[in-house]
Parts: sequence; structure tokens; C-alpha cells
Amino acid sequence: MNIQEIIAKKRDKQELTKEEINFFIKEYTNNNIADYQASALIMAIYLNGMSKEETVNLTLAMANSGDILDLSELGIVVDKHSTGGVGDKVTLILAPIIASLGVPVAKMSGRGLGYTGGTIDKLESIPGYKVNISEEEFIKNVKKIGISLIGQTMNLAPADKKIYALRDATSTTESIPLIASSIMSKKIAAGANKIVLDVTYGSGAFMKTKERAKELADEMIEIGRLAGRETVAVITPMEEPLGKNVGNTLEVIEAIEALKGKMAEDVKNIVLELGSNMLKLAGRGNNLEENKCKMMENILNGKALEKFKELVVNQGGDVGYIEDTNKFEKAKYILPVVLEKKTEQDSRITEVKNIDSAEEEANINKRIGIVKELKAEEIGKLSVFLGGGRIKKEDKIDQAVGITFNKKIGDVVEEGDIVAYIHANNEEKARVAVEKLKKIYVLN
Amino acid sequence: MNIQEIIAKKRDKQELTKEEINFFIKEYTNNNIADYQASALIMAIYLNGMSKEETVNLTLAMANSGDILDLSELGIVVDKHSTGGVGDKVTLILAPIIASLGVPVAKMSGRGLGYTGGTIDKLESIPGYKVNISEEEFIKNVKKIGISLIGQTMNLAPADKKIYALRDATSTTESIPLIASSIMSKKIAAGANKIVLDVTYGSGAFMKTKERAKELADEMIEIGRLAGRETVAVITPMEEPLGKNVGNTLEVIEAIEALKGKMAEDVKNIVLELGSNMLKLAGRGNNLEENKCKMMENILNGKALEKFKELVVNQGGDVGYIEDTNKFEKAKYILPVVLEKKTEQDSRITEVKNIDSAEEEANINKRIGIVKELKAEEIGKLSVFLGGGRIKKEDKIDQAVGITFNKKIGDVVEEGDIVAYIHANNEEKARVAVEKLKKIYVLN
Repeated sequence: MNIQEIIAKKRDKQELTKEEINFFIKEYTNNNIADYQASALIMAIYLNGMSKEETVNLTLAMANSGDILDLSELGIVVDKHSTGGVGDKVTLILAPIIASLGVPVAKMSGRGLGYTGGTIDKLESIPGYKVNISEEEFIKNVKKIGISLIGQTMNLAPADKKIYALRDATSTTESIPLIASSIMSKKIAAGANKIVLDVTYGSGAFMKTKERAKELADEMIEIGRLAGRETVAVITPMEEPLGKNVGNTLEVIEAIEALKGKMAEDVKNIVLELGSNMLKLAGRGNNLEENKCKMMENILNGKALEKFKELVVNQGGDVGYIEDTNKFEKAKYILPVVLEKKTEQDSRITEVKNIDSAEEEANINKRIGIVKELKAEEIGKLSVFLGGGRIKKEDKIDQAVGITFNKKIGDVVEEGDIVAYIHANNEEKARVAVEKLKKIYVLN
Repeated sequence: MNIQEIIAKKRDKQELTKEEINFFIKEYTNNNIADYQASALIMAIYLNGMSKEETVNLTLAMANSGDILDLSELGIVVDKHSTGGVGDKVTLILAPIIASLGVPVAKMSGRGLGYTGGTIDKLESIPGYKVNISEEEFIKNVKKIGISLIGQTMNLAPADKKIYALRDATSTTESIPLIASSIMSKKIAAGANKIVLDVTYGSGAFMKTKERAKELADEMIEIGRLAGRETVAVITPMEEPLGKNVGNTLEVIEAIEALKGKMAEDVKNIVLELGSNMLKLAGRGNNLEENKCKMMENILNGKALEKFKELVVNQGGDVGYIEDTNKFEKAKYILPVVLEKKTEQDSRITEVKNIDSAEEEANINKRIGIVKELKAEEIGKLSVFLGGGRIKKEDKIDQAVGITFNKKIGDVVEEGDIVAYIHANNEEKARVAVEKLKKIYVLN
């Protein structure tokens, strides 16, 4: 068996055998296959596709390319994964709720790269919180308090890491078999028995349309089935940022507020949808609506917040910040963003309006418009510009910076309204960001 | 402009602009684009194709990636190129004939790699012959005696060299735009005004069918037209080795014999076909049949051989070897290959034959069969096995080894006939090669 033959088969639209896929992954992980050979194969896979069976074999080969976390002593562990979003603080809210209902949460999360954020970066906003602990401590923590959220300390699916870097450099990211196998290999290596997926679509997501998101979801559900890991997927739009804040500390504060009962509608919908499915997979009730009620109950009675505090304490974090979010370090410059009313360009057109009352006329005159677009991808890039995200893996991030939104899609904007705040640690950047954000807001 | 965008365009079946192709070739030559990015683009080109315009732009970009030989002071220079074969000694015979007819021959040839041989390796069989001379000396030689055959001393089309090596390692060789641009870029960089191509097909060639060879030829003719280099192509089969010998010294001897008037029919056909077209392109007559007669005349009157001797002397070679080919060093072991008659496997079937005479019956009994297959690719590999070819660029080759064929496709083989000779410098290899060659001969 040699890599040229394997490339030639996929080039010619033939199906690769399990042995061929295993050979590729093993030898590529061991650096016996060159990057340029792997990238030729990846492009052939991108263009000629993969059968369900090939995708499952690729997933399992990548999962087995490094360490496999053994969570068997914890019973049924349900993992959750999102295909990416801007302002996505769902894990921070969802995990303690689920744990407070007695379902063990043993979750390894990633860091942010490009315009999407990462749960681990967000948790590091909490002073003292240790994201790098040993496998033993991780399992001990879950056994003790039912929850642990950490970074990827182990060598999970190294083949996926190599292939992912290659795909980024060779314009082969948006391929359903490649995305599906990448996600599922990491989840399988991370030891989950059951998996709930948040498959996003829209400007802030990998998949640009609902149809493509559905295709990706179906592929991952099928991989899960064939790999013996029951998988459920929820399809969610990601046209605008999720919730009210983008930025690490800002999102942690928003998550704490959510656990105290103050949760933005879009965040609440996703949290409840994913959580009710996680409870179902964990055998805690088949009725999703009832599951949602149980979740709301544990928010209202304070048990979810209590679990979050336990988590923070257990990981070495300062719980004082959870009790009083004013303790979090703020950005030096917090500038309001106000949209200007556009002056009529064409004065030749005079519209005859039917005005019922003087008050209504005054209201309409104050109105600038309704928010039509607030592209998540652009917001993500703005956050990176402020220092809140990474372009390269090695980049340091600024926890305090970000954006707070008062107005999102569908909201009416009147003259003088502060639609958002820019949080920055550099005055010049703050001003530039204000101007950039004004352009990102598209009104009707 | 960046390489990811260029890859994405070709991935999505869009046409690349001249600027994009130039950017890719320039930056890849300068090592600013990684091999893994180039190979992803190459696979996308392989699978999604290229328009005629893209192929021309790729050809010119590769031609301009290094030195361009300026042959303008020589007038009309007609270059000849073959897409590859086994036992192909055509250049050694054709070049002196053409030069003897007053058409300048200034040709840079390649070395053999894999199962195909190279003219330069063959010329090095002649003691003293210098294949590496300066550009000035090369042009001076052509001016003085009308002919020079040398190796690629200059940095011709380095982008093509990089891409070619990549294609070999990533199963992307058999792509018409990639083959066509590779060949034509080298020819253009080598300074020819007019080009005659020998496009081969069959087991020993890149193109496996006549139709594919025709497609490749059309593409190269079109590139030549658009690049202002008039190009003519001859399509020739390469199912079996060309002529009677495979191996460097053996082929040089065969070429000298051919120039003395003893030429195998298949070699003669190709030499005359290519040569008559070269004369036509050089403005020496539009009637191909008349051109062939002029060529035959210069073989029979000794002028072609005389020109070959002049060439050898001029390049520092020992002309004594041309005058008496017995001076060439022979291989230590020259073993005959005799095919055995297969014993009837199934004695249950008895054929009733109509025998007209006792003599005919005796003849038929002696006959083993008619040669049906003698795959050029297998013969090429056998030659490499004997040490006459290279697997890697750095490999040294053994000039004396090779194979001489007495029987080729269509020939009757009788009991006891020596169908071929193995020339080897290692006794064990000689014996193994005999057995291998027996298997390569397929009889009817």
C-alpha cells in the first residue's frame, strides 16, 4: 500500500477501504506521508466526496491517532459541541444546569481561533481558574461534584489537528465529510458516550445555509450511529452574534447573569433546546418540554448558579467574581456607538404621508430604522481587531475587550440611541472600532 | 491576491486569470507558497481542468520562471520533443540527418527517470562526449557545424521542475493541461521557434490511448499557436519498445547502425515522419514525401553519419567508437532468452486438425506462438532492474546493460528461438532478468 495509489483512487472517485484510510492517518500522523501528499488527497476528497462508510472510517482513524479518554467509570457522559459561533457562551450556562440535574459533565473545550471564540479562553477570565489539569484530576472532579470544564490537555486526535491546519491553508475547510469527521473524531477521543450537536448556519458559521447545516448534521448523526455514539443535532441560525456580548470577560459576566435568571432570548432558546436533548440522551426523561422546565426550575431556585460556583472553586478560581461580577477588570475605554440618520440624498422625491396624530409623526421622525443585518463574522473580526481573539495560535488575547449590543436584528433604532458599546484598552483602536461597528449595522 | 483564494477559485471550477497564474508560479518558484498549497491547487487543476487560455498562461509563466535561451542569431531553429518511450533513440538518428540537410539543431535533452530513458544518458556512453557546456559554447558549436546536443545546463523552467516532482508524488501526472504546459514551457525556455512533437501512446507512454494522445497533441499545438511557436505533432504507438535495443550503449550502437543504413522499420517510420515535418517547418519543402527522400538520401550517401561524427568530435567525444562500434564496452554477462512451449494443461480437449502435408505439420509443431504483447513499461522497468535506469534522480546508471530483441510483436516464435538477449554486469541479476523477460513475452 502506498499513498500515491490511495490518492489516485480518490482522484478517480473510487471508495477507499478501511485499511487505506487507516494507513493514511497512521503514516501521516507519524510524518511518513508528506504534507503535500496529504493536501492532494484532501483536495480530492473535497471535490469527489466520501461515502458514509469512508467518513466513519476516517473519523475512527483520526480518533484513534492519539490518546482516547476513558470516562467509563462516570457512567453515561453526554458531550455537547457547537460548530462555531460569535458570542457563543452556551457551554458556560448549559454545563452547570445539566450538572445540577445530576448528569455528569466532563468536557474538554477548545480555544478561539480566527473570528470564533473558545470556551477555555472565556473561563480563563475568572482569576485562578485552572484549565490545564491532569486526566486523573479531571475525572476525580467530575466524580466529586459532577462537573469539570477544562482545556485539551491530552494528545486528542493529533491527525485531526494536522489535517485541520492543512485544510485552513489549502481552502478545503468547507467539506461535509471533512468537517463531520473532524468534529466527531475529537468527541469520540474525548470519551463521550452520547453527543448533542449545535450545528450553526449563517454568516458567523462554517455552513452558510440551513440546508448545508442540515446535511452536516445528518452526516454526524450517521457517524455517531455507526460508531456506537448516539448523536442528536440541533440546527441554529448564526446570522448575528449570540446574546448581548462578544468578548471573553463580557461573555462570562453574561453567562453568570443568565444563571441568575437574566438570559437573552436567543441564548435561552439554544440552551434549553440543547439541554433538553442532553437530558433525554442521559435517560432523564423523553419529554423535551418537561426537560426544559426542569432546567428553568434549577435556574430559578439557584441550583445551577450554585453548581457553577462549585465548579469555579473546584478548579481553583476565585468565587468572589461570580458573586459580584463588578470585581471583573474592565476595559479602559468604553465608548458608546450611536448611528446617524442619513440625510436624504434625493430631495426631488417628496412622499405624501398620512399622519394620524402629531405624536406619531414625531415618533416616526425620530426613528432611524430597524436593524436588518449585524453580521456575526464581521463582529468576530472586530473583536479580533480589539485584541479579543487570535489570528495565529500563539497570539495573546485581551480578556476585557469586546462589544456589548443594545440593539440587534429586528430592533427599532431611534435618533440618539446607543446601539452598542465598544470595550477597548487602546484609545485609537476604540475610536476606529466605533466607526467600524457603525458600518456593520445595516438598517432597513 | 493570496494562494488560498486562487485554490478556492480552481476548486470551484472558475477560470484563473493570467495575474493569478503568474502570482502562483512566481511565488511558488520563490518558495513563498508551500508545497502542500501547490499540490492542493494541482489536484484541483487535475480534477477541474483548465481552459486553453489558462493552459497557455501557465505554460508562459513556467517558461519565464528561469532562464530563457536566446537562439535568435541561429535563424529558424526547429526543436523536437517526444512525450516519452522505451528504447527511444530517435533524437540520436534524427538530429544529425536534419543538420546534414542544413537545418540548425540546437537541442537540450533530459536524463532518464523511472522506466523511460534520456538522450543525454545515451550520449554519455560515448567516451569523452561532454554534455555540460556553456550556453556560449553551445551556440558557437551550432554556428560552426550546425548541430549541438547537450544536457540542460541552464536553469530552464524551474517552476516546471518543482511542479513535476510534486505531481509525481501526488498522482497528478496524467492531466492534459499539466503535461502540455510542462512540455511546452521547457521547449519555449529552450529557445525554439518551431516545435515538432512526437506524442506517444500505449503501455510505455503517459497517454494510454490514441484518443488521449490526440487530445494532448491538440492542446500543445494550440499552446504553440497562442505562444507564437508553430507546432506540429505526430502521434505514435508505444506498446512495445522502439527498435531492437533498450539500454544506453546498446541504443547508441543501434543509432550508429541506423545512420549507416541499417534501421528497424518502426524507428525508420518515426524518424522520417518527424524529420519531414521538421524540414517543412524550417522552410525546406512542403512535400513530406520528398522530404523523407532527402533524408534517406543523406543516410545512404553517408552525410548524416558524417554529421554525427562531427558532432561527437566537436563535443570532445572519441570518434573511434563511432567508426568501430565493437570498441564500446560490453556487459559481462550476455544471456540468451528462449521461450518454452507450454505443455497442454487440459488433455480432455482434443482438437481435430486438417493437415495438408507432413511438412506443414512439422512446422506447426515447432511453432510456439506469435508475440502478442511485449509491454514497453515492463521492459523499461526490467532495464532499471539491470541498472540501466534511475529510480531516484541521484542514482548512477550502468551504460552497458540492457536488452536486445530478436522477436517483437507479430513475430513467429519457434522452439529453440532466441527471442532476446539480456546484457548484465551481475550474474544473479542476469538470470533473474531472463526469467522476468520470459514472463513479459506474451504469445498468442
